[in-house]
Amino acid sequence: MKIAISGKGGVGKTLLAALLSKIFVESGYSVLAIDADPDANLAATLGFPNPEKITPISEMKALIEERTGVQSGQVGSFFKLNPKVDDLPEKYSVRYDGIKLMVMGRVKKGGSGCYCPENAMLQTLLAHLLVARNEVVILDMEAGIEHLGRGTAKAVDKLIVVVEPGRRSIETAYAINKLAQDIGLSNIAVVGNKLRSQSEKEFLISSLPDFEFLGFIPYDQAIVDADLANVPVVDSSQQVINEVRNIYQALLPAQVQAEQTK
Amino acid sequence: MKIAISGKGGVGKTLLAALLSKIFVESGYSVLAIDADPDANLAATLGFPNPEKITPISEMKALIEERTGVQSGQVGSFFKLNPKVDDLPEKYSVRYDGIKLMVMGRVKKGGSGCYCPENAMLQTLLAHLLVARNEVVILDMEAGIEHLGRGTAKAVDKLIVVVEPGRRSIETAYAINKLAQDIGLSNIAVVGNKLRSQSEKEFLISSLPDFEFLGFIPYDQAIVDADLANVPVVDSSQQVINEVRNIYQALLPAQVQAEQTK
Repeated sequence: MKIAISGKGGVGKTLLAALLSKIFVESGYSVLAIDADPDANLAATLGFPNPEKITPISEMKALIEERTGVQSGQVGSFFKLNPKVDDLPEKYSVRYDGIKLMVMGRVKKGGSGCYCPENAMLQTLLAHLLVARNEVVILDMEAGIEHLGRGTAKAVDKLIVVVEPGRRSIETAYAINKLAQDIGLSNIAVVGNKLRSQSEKEFLISSLPDFEFLGFIPYDQAIVDADLANVPVVDSSQQVINEVRNIYQALLPAQVQAEQTK
Repeated sequence: MKIAISGKGGVGKTLLAALLSKIFVESGYSVLAIDADPDANLAATLGFPNPEKITPISEMKALIEERTGVQSGQVGSFFKLNPKVDDLPEKYSVRYDGIKLMVMGRVKKGGSGCYCPENAMLQTLLAHLLVARNEVVILDMEAGIEHLGRGTAKAVDKLIVVVEPGRRSIETAYAINKLAQDIGLSNIAVVGNKLRSQSEKEFLISSLPDFEFLGFIPYDQAIVDADLANVPVVDSSQQVINEVRNIYQALLPAQVQAEQTK
């Protein structure tokens, strides 16, 4: 199963990706988590030791040059649009608590040109991870999902858009929905996060009338406090974990759900 | 004066950019606000009517082709790295309540290639707006500030990094600080946002010991409620406005501050 998680910055994509990764692993699945949001830190959220020591793929200059044939930062050169990437997941993923993780890193937008070799590498790698892998793949990504591309998007079983009570996050959900249609990705669902009241929940439902809601995660100050105290946020709120367990159940294929209730 | 505002997604960059724009205009300055964060909506936050009808520069395909010599989405072509942009601010900015606004839009990262003409156009335009304009320029931008480039960065009088009580926003502040040093931008200051308690304020101060703090904005549910009720958030919280006024004062050059207290 391939699950991509998107949404406006700050809505809680990374926490949902981390909790789903843990719950799938606990349920016996093999999980590959992918941090594809340069503004997030899935490793730290998952409690990986020394997350700052994980080198993102985009910063492996020698590797990118070897595979694309072009040095990072070179402008106007021709490079391989489909570099070899199939060996990278085993070589460059890190593992902790049963979860395999790959950190994609930031593609520099550049002062004077386009750094396309990194881009070609990351996109090909992302396509490989989503299309060719046989495990549960959980992709934490930014709101700009268009770099998934048509072929890759078809491999995504569910695109979860996280929203919070706020108009900007709703607007981003609609923008993501449009981009998703453009690349042929139609299995979209929404998760509401950081809810403080029934009226905030109703706001989300009425703002997104044509969307399927997978769940509603309450706001819990315990998450913020755990983060500030530098203890793992994934273990800090039982009510949040319980709700993400429900979301996990809703994600399982119908036949698995039927077997569980036998 | 040129002020750039950056920070992790969701920390409140756009609200600070909007409030500072309003306060500078009220104080008699001519203000150009630039929305350079594809995940934000500065027009809506500023209360512009019909913000969804503003076409971002990155989507003006005919203009981009005219100026760069290359069609949007074309891969591997040569295009002008320094397209003509000096006439664009007057032609393509929108105005409301005394504030001039330009919306840069999203640069597509592309499924199969790099869409560099848009990138070259936006970067040249950003450089022009920051370097050549004679007004207060307030730039709402994403955490990836590296596309400012060395020459442009020098024109920025103050880079404000917004942080909230949360480790990820602190990490982003350090990452931005490093990127800023790389491009020669050293006038950095921090604003704490969404503070619920004294201990959260102390967390920020102790987490960023070597940074200058311009101010601390309290969390106010009135901001969230105003947003959900679709009334202008910039007018919804007097305590937030008051604190941003203090930040505005701290931004003024020393000689202006001295004259005010005469």
